[in-house]
Order: sequence, then C-alpha cells, then structure tokens
Amino acid sequence: MKIRIKKDKIRDAAKIAASAADKRGAIPILANILLEAEDNLLRLTATNLEIGVSTVVDCIVEEEGKATVNASKAVRLFSSLTGEELTLEREEGKVVVKSVNSRFSLASLPPEEFPEVEVPEDFSVKLPSDEIDKALKKVSYAAGKDEAKYILTGVLLRSFGDRFHAVATDGHRLALYEVFVESEEWSAIIPKKSLSELKRLLREGNEVEIVEKHNKIYFRSGDTVMWSSLIEGEYPDYTKVIPEGNSKVFTVDRGEFLSALKEVSVIFDREEVRAVIFDLTENSLRLTAKSLEGETSEEAEVVIPVEYSGEPFRIGFNIAHMIESIGSFDGDSITVHMEEPVSPVLVTSQEEPQLKNVIMPMKV
Amino acid sequence: MKIRIKKDKIRDAAKIAASAADKRGAIPILANILLEAEDNLLRLTATNLEIGVSTVVDCIVEEEGKATVNASKAVRLFSSLTGEELTLEREEGKVVVKSVNSRFSLASLPPEEFPEVEVPEDFSVKLPSDEIDKALKKVSYAAGKDEAKYILTGVLLRSFGDRFHAVATDGHRLALYEVFVESEEWSAIIPKKSLSELKRLLREGNEVEIVEKHNKIYFRSGDTVMWSSLIEGEYPDYTKVIPEGNSKVFTVDRGEFLSALKEVSVIFDREEVRAVIFDLTENSLRLTAKSLEGETSEEAEVVIPVEYSGEPFRIGFNIAHMIESIGSFDGDSITVHMEEPVSPVLVTSQEEPQLKNVIMPMKV
Repeated sequence: MKIRIKKDKIRDAAKIAASAADKRGAIPILANILLEAEDNLLRLTATNLEIGVSTVVDCIVEEEGKATVNASKAVRLFSSLTGEELTLEREEGKVVVKSVNSRFSLASLPPEEFPEVEVPEDFSVKLPSDEIDKALKKVSYAAGKDEAKYILTGVLLRSFGDRFHAVATDGHRLALYEVFVESEEWSAIIPKKSLSELKRLLREGNEVEIVEKHNKIYFRSGDTVMWSSLIEGEYPDYTKVIPEGNSKVFTVDRGEFLSALKEVSVIFDREEVRAVIFDLTENSLRLTAKSLEGETSEEAEVVIPVEYSGEPFRIGFNIAHMIESIGSFDGDSITVHMEEPVSPVLVTSQEEPQLKNVIMPMKV
Repeated sequence: MKIRIKKDKIRDAAKIAASAADKRGAIPILANILLEAEDNLLRLTATNLEIGVSTVVDCIVEEEGKATVNASKAVRLFSSLTGEELTLEREEGKVVVKSVNSRFSLASLPPEEFPEVEVPEDFSVKLPSDEIDKALKKVSYAAGKDEAKYILTGVLLRSFGDRFHAVATDGHRLALYEVFVESEEWSAIIPKKSLSELKRLLREGNEVEIVEKHNKIYFRSGDTVMWSSLIEGEYPDYTKVIPEGNSKVFTVDRGEFLSALKEVSVIFDREEVRAVIFDLTENSLRLTAKSLEGETSEEAEVVIPVEYSGEPFRIGFNIAHMIESIGSFDGDSITVHMEEPVSPVLVTSQEEPQLKNVIMPMKV
C-alpha cells in the first residue's frame, strides 16, 4: 500500500473511524484502524465489535493494498503534523508516514487479523440528521440504568407504516418521540452507549439512512457508515403505557416550571428519595419538598402561576424525573395531564407534538 | 441575624467563599460558610484549615448576628433562586431564606463552632493581579509531584530588596519568574493545591496585596482576603542552579519548535522514558525519538530551521519537560543555552525576560 493524501482529509476521517476503535485494547487489532487503498479511495474502518465505523476519503493510490495503524496514535499524529500533504506506505510490519519535514515509522499489525466487516447496500428509511439526533437526545435520558432489566437500558427504534418511533423507559418514566416517514417494518433495541458515537456521526451529513440487518443496525450518512450490535429480546408494549383522556390538566410556562423545580431540588444532597409535592389550586401551583438527611430537616417551598381550573389536587413526583422530563422539551409551554395521585401522568408541549413523556407519581 | 440583600451580590460572594470550604466534610462546620452581619455589611468566611477565604458585601442589616449555612447548598440556592432581593434570617438552628415567591429553611450549625479567623490589616507588597497570576501560571507546572520531597511540591514566593520571585522546581527542571517591585524581605512556600483557589481570587480585582504572617500567606484583592497555610522548611538555593555563560546557543521560532516537539512525542504511549534527541548542525535542528514499547519499535524524525552557528552538537531531553517549558513562554522566539550534553540548560525568550527555565539534559 502506498498513497498520497491531504492531511486534513485523513485527519478528519481518522477521527471518525477512531471513535469506534477499542480504547482499552484487550484485543490489539481492535485498537487499530484498517486502511484499505483502492481506486483512488482510502477506506478507514474501526470496530470494537459492539459498534463499528467505516468511512471513505479520496486520495492518490500509488500502490493498492491494506495496512493497520493504532487508532489513537494515528489521530494524534494526523492532528499534530504540519504540512499539507502526506504519504503513507506499508513497509515490513510498519506504516511510514512522511510529510514535508518529517518521517514517522509506526507499528502495523497484519490487516488479515482485522475482523470481517460487511456493510449493506440497501437502507430502508431516510431521515433528516437533526430529526434522528433530536429523537435520540429527547428519549435516551429515560432509559434504565438497572443491568438486571437489560432490555430497558437500550433505546428502541421502531419503524412501521408511516411512522418512526424512538422510545426509552426505565419502568418509572417513559419518553416517546414520533416522526412521520415512509419505511419498512422493523424494530431494534440499541445499547445506550452506542448512541453517543452515533451522535458524532449525525453531525457529518444532512440525512441519515437506517436499516436493521443480521441483528445489527446500520446508519449511513455521507461517506460514513456506522453500525451497532443490538440488545436481543422483546421490548415492552409502550403504547399501552401512555394514558389517554386524563382529566386533571394544568399548563405552565416551561422556563418558570423548570426554575421552580430546580430551586426546590437545592435542598436535596445525596438522599435516595427526592420527592416534590405539587399542590394545585385555581391558577396556582405550590411545590414543596422536605429533606430528612442529617440531624435537621430542611424545607423548600415555591409558588408559581399555572393555568388550572379544577378542584384542589395533590400529587407527588420524583423531582429528578420531573426535571429531566421538563428539561427535555424545547417548547415555551408544558401541559401536565393527571388523573389519580397514583396513576400515570402524561407530559406534553403544545409546541412539540412529536414528544410525549409519561411519569409515574410517587405516593406522598 | 436578619438581613436583606441583593441576590446577585450574595450569590457571587457565596461562590468566592465556598471555594475554600471543605467539600469532603470530615468536620461538618468546615463545609459551612460563616455569615456575619454588622454595620450594613455581610461578611462570608469559609476555610478548610489549609486555605481560607473571607469576603464582604453590603446589605441591609435588620438585626446583627451570625449564622452558618452549608457552602455548596448556599451556592446552589443563590444561583437557582429567581427574584432580585432575598431576606436571610436565623431561626432556632435554621436559616430561613425568602424571595418573592419562595421560602427555604436550611440547617445551620452554631456559629461558635466555626474556627477563629484573624485577617491582617497591613500587607507588605502590592502587585498587579495579572502579574502575580502570570508568575504562578508560568512556574507552577515545574513543581515536584514526589511527596517524599515535600518542599519541592510547593511554589516559592520570595520578596527581597526591589524584587519578587516565584520559583518552582522538581529537581530536574526549574522555572523562575521575576518582577521588580519594592517590598519587605520574606519568603513562603505555598502548597500547589492552594494556587488554584488563589487564581480564582486574582480574577476579582486589579491589584493584589500580599503578606506572610504566623506561618500563613495572605492575599487581599478588593473586598476579599484569601490565606493559605505554608510548607515548612528551607527551599533549596535556586539561584545557584541557573547556569550563566553557556556557550552553545540556538534561537528558534517558538511555535515551530513546540509543534515539532509535539509531533515527535506522538509516538510515545505510556513509556516511562520519553527521550527526544536534538542534533544541531548549522541553522538546522533535527529532533528524533524512538519508542520501544510493545513488540515493534516506532520512530519519529522532524527537522526545523534554527539560528545556530556552532559545531555539530547532540543533546537529549525528557520531551515532556521540554514541551511544558516551551509551552509556558508567550514570546515568538526561544533561545536555548547549552554547554555540555550533561550540564544544565537555560531556556529564555527575548520577548519575556522575566521568565527563566532550567532543564537538565538526559543521557543519550
């Protein structure tokens, strides 16, 4: 393998690929980027077997072939080198990188050791990058942290008919983001830690194509394909959890609501139970909280105006769940739909009909 | 104690004081800010016994007195509260904070438990804040990390005749920053971890006054006084370490030099020994490095232009020390003064005569 390539191009491509390499390096080859030079293109691929990234840049191929380089070393080198053009050449177990005033001889493992990678040609749904980015951002906080309920630690992507759903739930709260788009029918549970890499990919292009195949999910954006292994099993039927027709409803300015919740939460330190009590009376919401940690109790009380015209009503929530939910919306107003002090509560925003949150109340 | 105070003022003052509170909280009172209200002033003081901060803001005192509040809780509360004015009132083991639409009742330890704090009236040297900030920033990286040589883990501040020196050394390299200023004679070895708090203080005002008293060093800036305990013992005579009249001298563009060093250092991963070899020939510096970690060796070579007219000369350095040294200068050019491959090397910059660095070479 021998190529000439613009430094900026290989630097950017190496950064994209390196994000999927295994930084801990239990299996040495997985800490590497596979370089494949052919038809004046350089393909860079890395995978930690859970996720993988493959990207292509143009270059001048003087000799076709393959090589591998340590991913983080390659990124550091291409980022720090001066000079506009580089040559890369494979030489007896080494890759030699030359720029105008420098020469680096880097260790290179045999490319045959690199795992087989198969990238699909056909994708089944196409979405604007910012739409899928928003969907993931707005639901993933609600995913479970309990490894014993492993399925719930993932984020469900589901494509059916004219819709695409992103869903996450930990059993106490749920977030659903809905996009209208034509697609084939499939669903996939993505491990939460694959999502941060995916977010990086979503910054690369304007559109993302997605397909589920061989128990993996593939995302293509521009010249880059990323894939993730999936969580196996059946995701709970989230559609049954979303309450309809709850009759006790208040609407509130989102910023004011979020500030009040954050103020009240100040009194909590490391308590396990962080309950906030909502007392609704006509056009008024009183939030109160009590901290019982340490020798003395501490109390907080904040009153804000809301639109509410029902009977006086009291309900309690895990304040962290409520803050995360309200913080995940972008609109100016929030509507909270309640029924009983113990039945699921729906949170919506008039300005953002794609997003629905469900929160279970706490007994108070 | 009962006061009325602008929220922004108590928020900013609480942040300043809280920086000195003990976050780990082995002794509960040290996690608190002492509030003292008198003469329409509120004094906020916190100390972890190693460092301390005391600051004053104006307020309306309705009832003089003292109270304590948890430092991080106070900062969180004053930062998240809406409303422009607050009242703070001490009530039976509590401090009650009220704003326009909220009420917080916080735990409060007896102010008598708070350690005695004595702040000096007279200071012995006055410096522009940015000058002392620069002095500390430009020497502290050279301080030792070896707790067995505890004195060297500190930064020496020394005031004598018409000069003020900041010095740090780990025995392998040394940094000295010199300011011309009239002062009384004293010296103090400040623990390195006190310096980050000091830097925050230096952002508060334009001038800093300093005095060493009762084995503490005190800094005053605006309405705030900060103090630190000192490291006891005798600092080595650093003036003897700085070589004079070294005859092999090269001058180089600082940016180019630093880039070349960083490029070469890319090949090192977690090696203990990171040596860079300098080969000087007429107007040329060749930097080479070899990494011997893992199964295969890796090599780097970068050549840059320098001003040098002596005999060919070879000398080796710890590359991390050289990068930190060159990175600590601000000027456009660097001059390196060498004599033997094993004798101390002086690093200076024509544009920054206040700063001198000494680096011991490595045998290569």
